[in-house]
Amino acid sequence: MTEFELIARYFTRPNRSALLGNGDDCAIVAPSAGNAFAVTTDTLIEGRHFLPTLDPFKLGRRVVNVNFSDLAAMGALPRYALLSLTLPQIDEDRISRFSDGLWSALDAYGVELIGGNTTKGPLAIAMTVFGELPPNAALTRSGARAGDELWVSGTLGDAGWALTSLIRDRSSDGGFAIEATAAQIEKYESPNARVALGLALRGIATSCIDISDGLLSEAKHLATASAVSIEIDIEAIPSGIEAIDRSDKWSAAQRLNAATNVAERDALIVAQLAQHCLLSTGDAYELLFTAPHDQHDAIAEILKRENLPGACIGRVTTLDAANPVRVLDAQSRAMDIEVKGWDHFA
Amino acid sequence: MTEFELIARYFTRPNRSALLGNGDDCAIVAPSAGNAFAVTTDTLIEGRHFLPTLDPFKLGRRVVNVNFSDLAAMGALPRYALLSLTLPQIDEDRISRFSDGLWSALDAYGVELIGGNTTKGPLAIAMTVFGELPPNAALTRSGARAGDELWVSGTLGDAGWALTSLIRDRSSDGGFAIEATAAQIEKYESPNARVALGLALRGIATSCIDISDGLLSEAKHLATASAVSIEIDIEAIPSGIEAIDRSDKWSAAQRLNAATNVAERDALIVAQLAQHCLLSTGDAYELLFTAPHDQHDAIAEILKRENLPGACIGRVTTLDAANPVRVLDAQSRAMDIEVKGWDHFA
Repeated sequence: MTEFELIARYFTRPNRSALLGNGDDCAIVAPSAGNAFAVTTDTLIEGRHFLPTLDPFKLGRRVVNVNFSDLAAMGALPRYALLSLTLPQIDEDRISRFSDGLWSALDAYGVELIGGNTTKGPLAIAMTVFGELPPNAALTRSGARAGDELWVSGTLGDAGWALTSLIRDRSSDGGFAIEATAAQIEKYESPNARVALGLALRGIATSCIDISDGLLSEAKHLATASAVSIEIDIEAIPSGIEAIDRSDKWSAAQRLNAATNVAERDALIVAQLAQHCLLSTGDAYELLFTAPHDQHDAIAEILKRENLPGACIGRVTTLDAANPVRVLDAQSRAMDIEVKGWDHFA
Repeated sequence: MTEFELIARYFTRPNRSALLGNGDDCAIVAPSAGNAFAVTTDTLIEGRHFLPTLDPFKLGRRVVNVNFSDLAAMGALPRYALLSLTLPQIDEDRISRFSDGLWSALDAYGVELIGGNTTKGPLAIAMTVFGELPPNAALTRSGARAGDELWVSGTLGDAGWALTSLIRDRSSDGGFAIEATAAQIEKYESPNARVALGLALRGIATSCIDISDGLLSEAKHLATASAVSIEIDIEAIPSGIEAIDRSDKWSAAQRLNAATNVAERDALIVAQLAQHCLLSTGDAYELLFTAPHDQHDAIAEILKRENLPGACIGRVTTLDAANPVRVLDAQSRAMDIEVKGWDHFA
């Protein structure tokens, strides 16, 4: 099978709405009158953004949803995609399943694949997506205002928890048990971009970002772009992880010291790790957004309609430059937690 | 240096014409009224699309020009770019020079870098570019008509010749000499997309493609998309390579048999290799296009104004399905040459 046959068989469909589709030097597209394109690109590399054991069908879905998640965070409707596929070799069975997953995710929004390329090399998938929106309806990161509420869709920590469990299984290093549920593993491996939610939040949310790198670092991006500070109530964050220690380092250390046996100690360590997953691990692909208090009920209604857990988890305050993001405990006391996002080169 | 500092220092500039530039979940862009976007994406992988020895400045220029070449082939004006950078580590000196090369190529057309991402992994660079054009002015592959002339810009074979010389130098395998000039190596390492030519050909060319994979395979793409056949006069193809055997395999074999010493034999082999570079190696990034005979003088004038060699190298005929592309020798006899493009997985 040649490169051209591969593209023709698995990645080509008849053109629908593009002015010129796949198969020329470029595709030609235009947004509807009055609209603009929201565009973003993301690269997924094997062993870094997904495990080599990931089912190719889910990988196809994941590539699309990771990119759509950025469109969702702008309140844009997905329209077109470009795919750059780097493969070590042509394994037709795997490519066929990858292609099925890719199309199932594209078809969910009627998105057209209008171009791309394949090349030989270590497995990597780069996708560029085009969403459409009226430019003044865009949900940017910079519109949060003091007094706004802070909301999150879905549950947090589950994806990081699932990844932790998968990595531990793979390395077989023993130690304390981290058991992820099938639902948590599914949420990690095959996230669903919150596209409908993003569209519903047009005119309601004042700022929005998708959680790809961890709650606290995304909150910091919102705070920085909006020149405000953000307070998060740790008790309010929805999560599918059962036992999370929602207290600060100091009380966790005290309890660890007071532990009378290994099982108790291990349970405390696992609950601390769960806190890290809740606040700082990525791959959630939920939306974090702010909105005025008078939109509270409307947002609760939207989340209910979308069948998403979600919750109001904090508030926007005036800028405190030393503390762009504060996490508050059950007694509304500021917790000592470092706000740090994922850095590929750290 | 963190990932965010790297992006901020080397790949971020103030936004100019984008509705929303770098730094949010998406950029937001729209073409001018009545126009559409031509979009394309290309990935360059170290050791496959460029040699590890390539100067990072030239690599930066190359990434942009390889992508702009597809815009040129559509007759589109470059406007925006997205960059996905996969790096094994942060080598600030190399990144700084890469960034300088990238911006020098983007600045030549006032193109804005509106987004992208960096990640860790084997060196690979994926770029998506947006050009602008009135949709009905697009130079597609499908408009060639029997009777049209076939044109090429610049010279062919030089880039392939340069690459051959560089690879032989690197492997030090001895054998006959292949000496590329500095100009040929420059043309290979740092091509210049024919953007101005593409724009000038709007309303003149009936079809157009850029030569990234070799003259004959690109001609076949034009022929297939336009449902015509194409004849190429081998003697008419401009090249910077000095000694090219422009005869067929049969007469080449006869001369090889008649060679009376090693030097004579080596020279014949090198001249045959030069023919292969002329017809079938890639990396030229010149435009191959068709136009009615009555545009002959206008095209010659455009090439002169653009200071490009170029030439009329053949013609379009009605479809002969068994021979989408024919190469004719000096006596207008069909030569026995296989038409085959580059296949990354062959």
